[in-house]
Amino acid sequence: MKLIQDTIHGLLKIEDWMIKIIDTPEFQRLRRISQIGFANLVFPGANHTRFEHSLGVMEIARRLVERMEIDEDEKMEIVASALLHDIAHLPFSHCSESVVERRLGLNHENVEVVLRKGEIKDVLRDLGFNVRKMIAHIKGLSDCNVVKGDIDADRIDYLMRDSHYTGVAHGVFDAQRLINKIVFVDKKIVIDAGGLRSAESLLISRFLMYTTVYYHHVCRIARKMFEKALEFCIEEGNLKPRELFHMDDFTTINFLKASGGYPKDVVERLLNRKLFKRALYVEIKRVGVNLNRIDPSNAEREIAERAGVDEKYVIVDIPKLANGEEFEALVLVGGEMKRLDEVSSLVRALREAEKNSLMLGVYTPKEFVDKVSRVAAEFFAVDKTYQSKLF
Amino acid sequence: MKLIQDTIHGLLKIEDWMIKIIDTPEFQRLRRISQIGFANLVFPGANHTRFEHSLGVMEIARRLVERMEIDEDEKMEIVASALLHDIAHLPFSHCSESVVERRLGLNHENVEVVLRKGEIKDVLRDLGFNVRKMIAHIKGLSDCNVVKGDIDADRIDYLMRDSHYTGVAHGVFDAQRLINKIVFVDKKIVIDAGGLRSAESLLISRFLMYTTVYYHHVCRIARKMFEKALEFCIEEGNLKPRELFHMDDFTTINFLKASGGYPKDVVERLLNRKLFKRALYVEIKRVGVNLNRIDPSNAEREIAERAGVDEKYVIVDIPKLANGEEFEALVLVGGEMKRLDEVSSLVRALREAEKNSLMLGVYTPKEFVDKVSRVAAEFFAVDKTYQSKLF
Amino acid sequence: MKLIQDTIHGLLKIEDWMIKIIDTPEFQRLRRISQIGFANLVFPGANHTRFEHSLGVMEIARRLVERMEIDEDEKMEIVASALLHDIAHLPFSHCSESVVERRLGLNHENVEVVLRKGEIKDVLRDLGFNVRKMIAHIKGLSDCNVVKGDIDADRIDYLMRDSHYTGVAHGVFDAQRLINKIVFVDKKIVIDAGGLRSAESLLISRFLMYTTVYYHHVCRIARKMFEKALEFCIEEGNLKPRELFHMDDFTTINFLKASGGYPKDVVERLLNRKLFKRALYVEIKRVGVNLNRIDPSNAEREIAERAGVDEKYVIVDIPKLANGEEFEALVLVGGEMKRLDEVSSLVRALREAEKNSLMLGVYTPKEFVDKVSRVAAEFFAVDKTYQSKLF
Amino acid sequence: MKLIQDTIHGLLKIEDWMIKIIDTPEFQRLRRISQIGFANLVFPGANHTRFEHSLGVMEIARRLVERMEIDEDEKMEIVASALLHDIAHLPFSHCSESVVERRLGLNHENVEVVLRKGEIKDVLRDLGFNVRKMIAHIKGLSDCNVVKGDIDADRIDYLMRDSHYTGVAHGVFDAQRLINKIVFVDKKIVIDAGGLRSAESLLISRFLMYTTVYYHHVCRIARKMFEKALEFCIEEGNLKPRELFHMDDFTTINFLKASGGYPKDVVERLLNRKLFKRALYVEIKRVGVNLNRIDPSNAEREIAERAGVDEKYVIVDIPKLANGEEFEALVLVGGEMKRLDEVSSLVRALREAEKNSLMLGVYTPKEFVDKVSRVAAEFFAVDKTYQSKLF
Repeated sequence: MKLIQDTIHGLLKIEDWMIKIIDTPEFQRLRRISQIGFANLVFPGANHTRFEHSLGVMEIARRLVERMEIDEDEKMEIVASALLHDIAHLPFSHCSESVVERRLGLNHENVEVVLRKGEIKDVLRDLGFNVRKMIAHIKGLSDCNVVKGDIDADRIDYLMRDSHYTGVAHGVFDAQRLINKIVFVDKKIVIDAGGLRSAESLLISRFLMYTTVYYHHVCRIARKMFEKALEFCIEEGNLKPRELFHMDDFTTINFLKASGGYPKDVVERLLNRKLFKRALYVEIKRVGVNLNRIDPSNAEREIAERAGVDEKYVIVDIPKLANGEEFEALVLVGGEMKRLDEVSSLVRALREAEKNSLMLGVYTPKEFVDKVSRVAAEFFAVDKTYQSKLF
Repeated sequence: MKLIQDTIHGLLKIEDWMIKIIDTPEFQRLRRISQIGFANLVFPGANHTRFEHSLGVMEIARRLVERMEIDEDEKMEIVASALLHDIAHLPFSHCSESVVERRLGLNHENVEVVLRKGEIKDVLRDLGFNVRKMIAHIKGLSDCNVVKGDIDADRIDYLMRDSHYTGVAHGVFDAQRLINKIVFVDKKIVIDAGGLRSAESLLISRFLMYTTVYYHHVCRIARKMFEKALEFCIEEGNLKPRELFHMDDFTTINFLKASGGYPKDVVERLLNRKLFKRALYVEIKRVGVNLNRIDPSNAEREIAERAGVDEKYVIVDIPKLANGEEFEALVLVGGEMKRLDEVSSLVRALREAEKNSLMLGVYTPKEFVDKVSRVAAEFFAVDKTYQSKLF
Repeated sequence: MKLIQDTIHGLLKIEDWMIKIIDTPEFQRLRRISQIGFANLVFPGANHTRFEHSLGVMEIARRLVERMEIDEDEKMEIVASALLHDIAHLPFSHCSESVVERRLGLNHENVEVVLRKGEIKDVLRDLGFNVRKMIAHIKGLSDCNVVKGDIDADRIDYLMRDSHYTGVAHGVFDAQRLINKIVFVDKKIVIDAGGLRSAESLLISRFLMYTTVYYHHVCRIARKMFEKALEFCIEEGNLKPRELFHMDDFTTINFLKASGGYPKDVVERLLNRKLFKRALYVEIKRVGVNLNRIDPSNAEREIAERAGVDEKYVIVDIPKLANGEEFEALVLVGGEMKRLDEVSSLVRALREAEKNSLMLGVYTPKEFVDKVSRVAAEFFAVDKTYQSKLF
Repeated sequence: MKLIQDTIHGLLKIEDWMIKIIDTPEFQRLRRISQIGFANLVFPGANHTRFEHSLGVMEIARRLVERMEIDEDEKMEIVASALLHDIAHLPFSHCSESVVERRLGLNHENVEVVLRKGEIKDVLRDLGFNVRKMIAHIKGLSDCNVVKGDIDADRIDYLMRDSHYTGVAHGVFDAQRLINKIVFVDKKIVIDAGGLRSAESLLISRFLMYTTVYYHHVCRIARKMFEKALEFCIEEGNLKPRELFHMDDFTTINFLKASGGYPKDVVERLLNRKLFKRALYVEIKRVGVNLNRIDPSNAEREIAERAGVDEKYVIVDIPKLANGEEFEALVLVGGEMKRLDEVSSLVRALREAEKNSLMLGVYTPKEFVDKVSRVAAEFFAVDKTYQSKLF
């Protein structure tokens, strides 16, 4: 057994079988994938990685399975799934995900892409794991929702961790009480009534972290710039989307730099923090057109053309509402199981607040902001006086 | 100048004039008034006092006035008001307040009761303070709402402090950002748009702390027991309500013990944690009668009689909704001042959530719970199956 | 089972048998005994009590016994001993201890004074505990040093806790690693080599907390004033030393106040923070006489007489070196057990540093400081230029 | 003005002139230089960078100069020097420093290498800074020791920061009190007597962080492997040492990978955590030869040859004692200035403890450990039974 010092959960006890998984190149690659993409452009301390997050999720899972009444092998399988749940994360985490999703219909939950070959495949086989079942846990398709569910080990860890590294207090919630108030009905997490406030508190943290950190306009701009550079390389035939599953932050930056031209320009802007600026940034309810009918690429082309700007330098960013599965977590009240949003008016309000916080953005280099701003406002039928200075 | 180590705000710089105020017996008395009454019966770390809270509020006020454009004398007056805002707090803080309020129409904001005599009067006069103006700041009747307003120095400190000492994470919010995003319009606090999330976060903390700590049923039971013992002494003619302004936790406990009989029994129950239990505890929306028309004392008498229990051993606890002035804090959005609850759907939801969290309680010693429970359910026309196990 | 929120160790799981002990009046009394006496006169947050410390020591003991290879009954006995190790603590903790020690040869480890009667006796009997063995654990006379030893559960808790409540960072050390690096040889705690730095770190914390907090001159002055008032009451025949085992901070303050005269004057000085001041405060190596041959009472009498001051208003405070048993903790290096001070030059240096930090003090009310100062310097043959301004 | 959220010091107020410096490519490069090299191989949270550390040192400097009695321009110059003090740091910080030091006699304090050209040169000129004076502050050659001295802004920040990100409590010390107890004699930092414990505490933190984190054997092994790969590239003529001043972690890793052969093998070992292991690891006092006379490269060659191993796969790591300038910080005791190590026996002990903690290491891939171990023990005349298992 080995001890690893985690900044969030303290000393982690790492058993031999875990070491074997951790020591594979596939897992070590997570050391080079930043947890929240380019958030360190805003929060300079946010340099944490999927590696430490994965250890943290494993730790939370370990504490949860302890109180499940299942046999040791099944517990180990769940814990290992927690450890490996992000093994297929892409460079800069979510920042390159949509590129792959759009082309291949795959995302970071498609861990089979990684687990079915290489050293990790051999190690899992030697340890006797049933990889098929692990994949089900990770995708939320098994009968147990510890790894992926409405309130799960993943969410508990990332809120605490992202809060520690950004310095934003919002991520602080009462994790220990929440974990203690989780009971298991079959293999499903249910919150005991005494944990209601802690569960609400987690959802609120999540909402505040989304609007303050994850959806900070600088994070969104950097992410969109990065996506667009990747898209360019793919369209030029220089990058196969599937390769991204085996790249990391280091190799991707290097690849883009070496590509020259547009990708090189974008990556240098990211590295030197010469980012695109907001030409338009408004609450979606201010938008006069139906956003569901707008294809962002087309919109970019049209706005660029009208503004007389190279289309590669106009980005249209239409936000999507998170699916909000957390709202459906189950709470045990007076012997009955109810949905969290049934029991808590606060949670119901969060849905509303989330919708209201969505912003449409159009980004372009500083020198084009005026031109693009005017055209974009027209295109989206926005009264420009609504241009938000909110965040 | 002197340094005092505060657990929440770090080293506080205490100027000479502050020391003069702090060193009066009137201010030192605050060392012996616990900040959140009997909460230490549930949260063993909650032994903090009005003394340290007062220093903390002064510190927050000091940081706030720094950016007001008023002259130094006025700043000093506001800071001194912050320091003294709780000088008239009563034994076990809010736990003895309603007794005084009912009889004399005075509460802890009537600082004139304390400031107009004794050493403190002399010190304030020697320092050249205008006590009348200070009282206005403390009561929220001046043109400046730093000490008492919707979002004020008091609230900022108590949430952080109560969180530290109870160990309940809910009180954690982004105080530093909030303070930095406060601007002054005349002498009124206004939240800049960039501080909206921090302000929401404060209100949420407050809500969660209320339901988890301040309104924890054990805290409420202990408080009500204590109140009833004080009422008894007053009715027997052994205690004048006004005396409570000069008593502290130590002297009050001792007085009740020395009174013998019922007060002694109650205080021993408090000291030995042999508290009354919940005979009824239901959400007020489950109650079948109009609570506005019920006088708690009458209700206690009637329930006791029907249950065949001494009326001194039945407590009816009808909660009141806090006035929610925080919801009315002003936010500066796009050059316009708006009310916080106009701008934030989350804040609007909190009002609703607060109402839903109100519980009616009837408490009695363990051995009478069954009898009283049945009668009380009848009295309040409550379907007993709704008896809440929620918190 | 019940959960208690501890500010230091998080949620504590309290089993039924623990609740039975905690709910006795003897244990509840610890709620009213402040952990570090009058330290709150300097550190306003230091209002924590022996009650929460006792829960904390129990928690550390629980974590330690988990890895001992002994049967469950013995584990429970050790954990219960940890819970009860301070049950005989006296009002304001160490502040009244020497009074009892001098007269009766008893101190707070003589838990038999409390455990052998009252409700606690019955509860322990009903739970089937062997009280004799528990007493041995608490006094450090058993074959197991978890509760009392060189590095034990008590020390680990109090450093962390006193640090949290004073706000002094010095108490922070790597407790989790230390606990993880403890191995058991028979039933004795031994530090594995990998925990050497953590053990050093604990000793350093202890040293810094002693010099900064526990031996802060204001704490020492208040303690000595309190002791002298108690001594006075005993000599006048108004207080039997043994009674102190059943008194608490509240009742003692009240008793002194009610005594009138000198005790009343002292207690009012303590309550209103009108403390004695330092007439002399020098490193003991500056002292020109042999302190071992000086009886403090005699010295007080003589200095008072020469200075023309009432002897009750002169206090001579000759510090004693702590016994430093921690230095003798065992460390496992390369298969061999060695003493901590053998292995660590840093630890050896602490002994020296401790000796050098000892200060002789003579205290008296402000108005007598000049007179007493001169006489005291003569009496102790101190060159007054050495009068320390160090702390 | 802009606000940046720092995890250690809270919200930093960034003035316009600071933004201009921060926004240069030279400063942005610090985002890609990890603060403590390969320490994240042991402490997975240690991904922080020279970028955020530089902001932190600026903040500490800002707080310090506030109380100096010098004009605003000079204050600004010192604060700017603090911001730029690490601008010439090399890839993976100290991990590539010795390579440059050995060849060019330059280290990260030779900021002139960076400041004298590029965008940063222009920005500093436009802002009117005297670069010559700034360099003097950074090298500790000016009349002010805020940026570099015995106890300086740099040390205060890195201990706090490294502690936060490694999760090792040892770095916690009482920074706020220390800063408050600093007085200025001319432009030199002097610790007021009341800050003695805080200063001791900083030195102890530094010692514990050195032995626990910075000199953790895995950190040393990774660093030495990296150095050896760089040396190889230089000797092969593929890398000019001076280029390293403009490279970062990303580009260096990429360069080594692209170099193929030995450097590629080393970098893959680092990325996949297949590190060399300790063939010998002993306290230097156990070594039977005079280490001052040993050239590490020669030793590597000879040991490799005798063991029949490729010399590129044997590393000899002879530690150097830090110069310990902190021990010479000045303390103001009774009106006199004394050296810290004169006043504090604890500090004197640290010197000794530091010497005793030095370890000689010989590292090689796992498969050669046995062979190399035997030969190395002979070469250094070490009794192998002393092989340390200490850390």
